[in-house]
Amino acid sequence: MKRLLLTPGPTPIPPDVLGAMGEPIIHHRTAEYKEIFKEANDNLHKVFKTQNDIFTFTSSGTGAMEASVVNICSPGDKVIVVRGGKFGERFSDISKFYGVEAIPLDIEWGTAPDPSAVEVLLKAKKKVKAVYMSLCETATATAYDVKAIAKVVAQTDAVLVVDAISGLAADELKTDEWGVDIVVAGSQKGLMLPPGLSFCSVSKKAWGLVESARCPRFYLCFKGMKKALDKGDTPFTPAITLVIGLRESLKIILADGLDKFMARNKTLADATRKAVKDLGLELFSKRPSDAVTAAKVPDGLDGEALIKDLRKKHGVWFAGGQAALKGKIFRIAHMGSIRPSDMREGFAALEDILKAMGHKFEPGSGLKELKKL
Amino acid sequence: MKRLLLTPGPTPIPPDVLGAMGEPIIHHRTAEYKEIFKEANDNLHKVFKTQNDIFTFTSSGTGAMEASVVNICSPGDKVIVVRGGKFGERFSDISKFYGVEAIPLDIEWGTAPDPSAVEVLLKAKKKVKAVYMSLCETATATAYDVKAIAKVVAQTDAVLVVDAISGLAADELKTDEWGVDIVVAGSQKGLMLPPGLSFCSVSKKAWGLVESARCPRFYLCFKGMKKALDKGDTPFTPAITLVIGLRESLKIILADGLDKFMARNKTLADATRKAVKDLGLELFSKRPSDAVTAAKVPDGLDGEALIKDLRKKHGVWFAGGQAALKGKIFRIAHMGSIRPSDMREGFAALEDILKAMGHKFEPGSGLKELKKL
Repeated sequence: MKRLLLTPGPTPIPPDVLGAMGEPIIHHRTAEYKEIFKEANDNLHKVFKTQNDIFTFTSSGTGAMEASVVNICSPGDKVIVVRGGKFGERFSDISKFYGVEAIPLDIEWGTAPDPSAVEVLLKAKKKVKAVYMSLCETATATAYDVKAIAKVVAQTDAVLVVDAISGLAADELKTDEWGVDIVVAGSQKGLMLPPGLSFCSVSKKAWGLVESARCPRFYLCFKGMKKALDKGDTPFTPAITLVIGLRESLKIILADGLDKFMARNKTLADATRKAVKDLGLELFSKRPSDAVTAAKVPDGLDGEALIKDLRKKHGVWFAGGQAALKGKIFRIAHMGSIRPSDMREGFAALEDILKAMGHKFEPGSGLKELKKL
Repeated sequence: MKRLLLTPGPTPIPPDVLGAMGEPIIHHRTAEYKEIFKEANDNLHKVFKTQNDIFTFTSSGTGAMEASVVNICSPGDKVIVVRGGKFGERFSDISKFYGVEAIPLDIEWGTAPDPSAVEVLLKAKKKVKAVYMSLCETATATAYDVKAIAKVVAQTDAVLVVDAISGLAADELKTDEWGVDIVVAGSQKGLMLPPGLSFCSVSKKAWGLVESARCPRFYLCFKGMKKALDKGDTPFTPAITLVIGLRESLKIILADGLDKFMARNKTLADATRKAVKDLGLELFSKRPSDAVTAAKVPDGLDGEALIKDLRKKHGVWFAGGQAALKGKIFRIAHMGSIRPSDMREGFAALEDILKAMGHKFEPGSGLKELKKL
């Protein structure tokens, strides 16, 4: 059956990327592969907006999240973790496993952290090694104010680690200009690839912590990655086909410049949010992300059935809510290669299902804004 | 240019596998994906010859090697590591990073460890947690006697960890019958996939060490993997396309039963070794693997030029020697999807280059055995 993925990872993969990954495999210890890796890596810097080194891991995004802890922390260290959804909580879990004390900055799900709350906490606690936050908290479709928080953290000895796994290439991120020390990213979201690659960019300030960090690591070690990267390589066998795909997808993203790609994405995000409201639905997030939109399931409707029916009847895939939000929200991605025509198809299906479920709205209202694109 | 990969990883990927991986991506938190993962996992058990749990990591083989250390050891523990090549040494490196004492059993490169040497060392050292060895040491194309060493280790409290990354589905391995506690594997060798997946099977005896193991781990944690596997899942976003490819490649491997697949592989390995000798070359290994063959570069010939000329002139890819063996050997893989016709093409090219380099042999002698297949 046809399948239109409007899920916040994996996102649809452009045909050219699938094609490049479907070629007979090449060997990785060669000039040919190094050239591909170099082109991909150079272009990654443009998307991250950084001149810092970017390390490419063969792992899920969680691998790079763990790398951002173990390479700068030691057991007994203190870090601040912004927790406003499932992915914020993962940094706490990782820290705990390594004996690092994660001081939570818990916020209501669907809201973004107040920069002054970070400032107060940094002042109250002594010797905080790092602050962990998301660019986009995927679980609630909320964009955090990285720029403002980076300004706060920059005035301390702490480094700022931003999980941009779902936000990269969708929500604005100026790594160097804002002073983000470590940016964590993954392949299967805005980068339009299958899952399997993850990334960390590392600033000079963060490097200052690497030497003394006593959390043990081998596969995820920044120093090993750096040594190999300086030779244009990775320390262990890379996921060759995914790196080949990465080169292709970055070409697509940068074809007209990153700004235009992001602007098209923002236009689609704006129209999607309007479409949600035009259907008489509420946005869940107080500070919505341009990568993904979360809509509240209207009172009295079965949110899980809604998701299921969309898949079964129309082949349209939205994501449901996680944990406490299960059945209460649904999430629609508009990042990566997702086009206005995809979104129109998605909302036509959504109208059909909402109608069948008895939700009242003016037919066609969900498509009005999207038809303008 | 045409490219015939006869390298011990990555190996050529069958067209059906490339095709399956080139389909539009599907979501991983679904019944559809779980079914694919289950079929792949069930068939992996047949190839591993085990009823133990097998965990699938999104990582290079090194990730699974690290998992086989951190999940059973604590800082200060002692392990024995057989070192007869680059990959044996990696276990020592990993142990060191975690404060685990790796007692080396160093053997001459190209030889296999004597089971009685393992026995003596196990008796001499007290409280050894584990013995680490390879099934096939890829660097020297040597098959180790896992069966005999497993018998020795079984009589102690130590567990046996076997790196089968390059050996699986080529060199004989009977995990349960022989009593191998942890088998480490990777996707890009006998399993005929791109790199990016790695595996660990874990015996009951090894599980006995997991609870008390104090090396910290999160992404590579067996307990997290087990909890998810019991629900038919992985704890973190898997490399979806590679798992889809895995299901396809295992179908191919098991189409006529594993025994027939391995027998065809052995026939090709035997013929390749004879072909090497017929060309007046010596085998490097004293106990050759059926996954890969290492030939000594004849005295006076430039081994690195040989590899380069094969690639440049014929598009045929052999692997060179690593570390001290650089320029001294070349390695020819015959695992996975490599067919007799591929090997004939490889040896025709090899004859051409050897002739041009002035090596004396009877023309066509390298093809004699291979033509019988």
